[in-house]
Amino acid sequence: MFSKGFLTPFVTGVLGSAAFYTVFDKISHKSRVDPEKFDFLKVPEDSSVLEDTKKLEQARSILKYGAPSQGPYLRFYENHVLAYDQSKRTPIWVAEYLTKANVEGPANRKNVKFRPDPNVTVMYTAHNSDYLGSGWSRGHMSPAGDNKHSQEAMRESFYLSNVVPQDLQNNGGFWNRLEMYCRDLTKTYQSIIIISGPLILPQERNGKQIVEYEVIGKSQVSVPTHLFKVVLAESDSMPTKPLGVFIVPNKPIGFEHSLTEFQVELEELERVAGVTFLPKLDRKQVSDLCKVNGCKLMKKEKFQLYFITRKIQSSRSIKHLDKVWGELEENKLQPDEYMVNLYNSKREELMNVEKDKSNVTK
Amino acid sequence: MFSKGFLTPFVTGVLGSAAFYTVFDKISHKSRVDPEKFDFLKVPEDSSVLEDTKKLEQARSILKYGAPSQGPYLRFYENHVLAYDQSKRTPIWVAEYLTKANVEGPANRKNVKFRPDPNVTVMYTAHNSDYLGSGWSRGHMSPAGDNKHSQEAMRESFYLSNVVPQDLQNNGGFWNRLEMYCRDLTKTYQSIIIISGPLILPQERNGKQIVEYEVIGKSQVSVPTHLFKVVLAESDSMPTKPLGVFIVPNKPIGFEHSLTEFQVELEELERVAGVTFLPKLDRKQVSDLCKVNGCKLMKKEKFQLYFITRKIQSSRSIKHLDKVWGELEENKLQPDEYMVNLYNSKREELMNVEKDKSNVTK
Repeated sequence: MFSKGFLTPFVTGVLGSAAFYTVFDKISHKSRVDPEKFDFLKVPEDSSVLEDTKKLEQARSILKYGAPSQGPYLRFYENHVLAYDQSKRTPIWVAEYLTKANVEGPANRKNVKFRPDPNVTVMYTAHNSDYLGSGWSRGHMSPAGDNKHSQEAMRESFYLSNVVPQDLQNNGGFWNRLEMYCRDLTKTYQSIIIISGPLILPQERNGKQIVEYEVIGKSQVSVPTHLFKVVLAESDSMPTKPLGVFIVPNKPIGFEHSLTEFQVELEELERVAGVTFLPKLDRKQVSDLCKVNGCKLMKKEKFQLYFITRKIQSSRSIKHLDKVWGELEENKLQPDEYMVNLYNSKREELMNVEKDKSNVTK
Repeated sequence: MFSKGFLTPFVTGVLGSAAFYTVFDKISHKSRVDPEKFDFLKVPEDSSVLEDTKKLEQARSILKYGAPSQGPYLRFYENHVLAYDQSKRTPIWVAEYLTKANVEGPANRKNVKFRPDPNVTVMYTAHNSDYLGSGWSRGHMSPAGDNKHSQEAMRESFYLSNVVPQDLQNNGGFWNRLEMYCRDLTKTYQSIIIISGPLILPQERNGKQIVEYEVIGKSQVSVPTHLFKVVLAESDSMPTKPLGVFIVPNKPIGFEHSLTEFQVELEELERVAGVTFLPKLDRKQVSDLCKVNGCKLMKKEKFQLYFITRKIQSSRSIKHLDKVWGELEENKLQPDEYMVNLYNSKREELMNVEKDKSNVTK
């Protein structure tokens, strides 16, 4: 099948990536130019230029000192892949793959701190100091709660490459409930692909379309006007794959709003984001997540109980614990048996701790 | 040097791009995962992930339906290479390589029209209708005047992928003079690498840093607040390479302003653009273009004479020709001998044309 000539370049010692082009050349039987002269060719995805010697010769001169670089297009982490915007100092999108197994586990955020991603060139990274005092919270795109299966994944989710300036109430409220909804989907479907990111959208003003947004800190981190989430669920047993696409304003969104209000067609998001998502997905296989699964976020009372439960779990003193327990009455919430038991055991635990401490100081 | 085992994969018929990874694997003697399973690996520039099987396995799930795509990073044309912003519907940067030979020639813009770049996905391209009536002109990044050596290059320079919404006076005035200056450099230096593009920069407002800009038309083409140009000159005989970097506001800039007012350090542009330019250039070899060459743009009178000359050349009637000639007096400009001769010969040519026409109609 292959002539002896085909093997020659390897035997005579062509090394490294140059070999690729030579091999490819021989295999494809197309007339391509000497690849050693065109090392920028590793960059483009579109390879049609490989056939055009004239364009290549000129490109070689134009890109003599390298192609202007926006950094690596894809950045890989244990539990997410992202594209980073070196100009905005935020991700463009962050993609995850959730299963029941990877949203559970002992990893926690206790000793994990937000920090600049060491993989991003210093000049192009955000810093904690950009966010602090800005009035904007640090909003995870791959949420901490999706990374409980691994402390390393948890740690990486706190890199600022995974973070955008987010309205605090949105972050802890509506967006949080959307993230919980996505995790809950792993109980119904084998796997969920989620792609999240910031958007900056124009608004009408005096008959013109105007884009306006804040940039914060010395690094001038861009504050998005909106956030998006693409959610694709699938199970081997299902003929269709439920898909939900949402564009949510980066501001407080109360419990009176439903998720479906923010649902858009995938193409609408693609048009404004300039990004084609799930390019290899057969869109004929897709069904509407909100029709199939309802897209119901956690209700107000349950959400508040959930938060008080978390506060009980993390209480460090009886005084704090009892203050948290008081929030139930303030909000006219009825604790269930699980919460009552949790409160009692936590109180006993803290009493023992405080007794020990007082013995030590005596 | 190579064992027989090294050759085996080729002889047994591994085909296409998969061969690359297998070859690379064998050559580098590193343990890499089965490349057939990871076809998204053609995308990243950063190949360190190739060594991390765990990250790769997860990435394979995350990117099961392809990595979100912003289109090909580099786009190649006969006389320029560009990176396109699918979201802003403008280039990110456009790079050129000028020599004395390619700024001269018979190609002209007469029968060439602005049009959407057929290489850009329809959903992400700008259209002429976005610009028309918007109040913004279509500003070439690789200027028509840099493409005179080839009608095909001229034609490609009118693709809207090479265009940004530009203030009309800036486009025809200061920016035009900067482009002329760059072409003039080819008389002094063997070659000039030029990288041009739009920028959107924040301004201070009520103690906050705010970004504000217009988007025009149905495609929502972003109107930049500034434009940049990176100009690198070189000659084989010179020990240093003069470099000039400029950030120019996208508004009218009068003749009282000099180019040096807009000069910045390359790093300053890189920080705001999020792009590393000329990554393979040894920056120790660089000198300051404005110190070496002066960065003097064409003066007002000469620039006006130049434009009147062009108008004389393109006059289609004696009436129009004499109106243009009148502009000299209006602007108190003194024509040189070349212009007087040009006017006389053009007038004679037009008289003959008009005489012929009147004979035909008789």
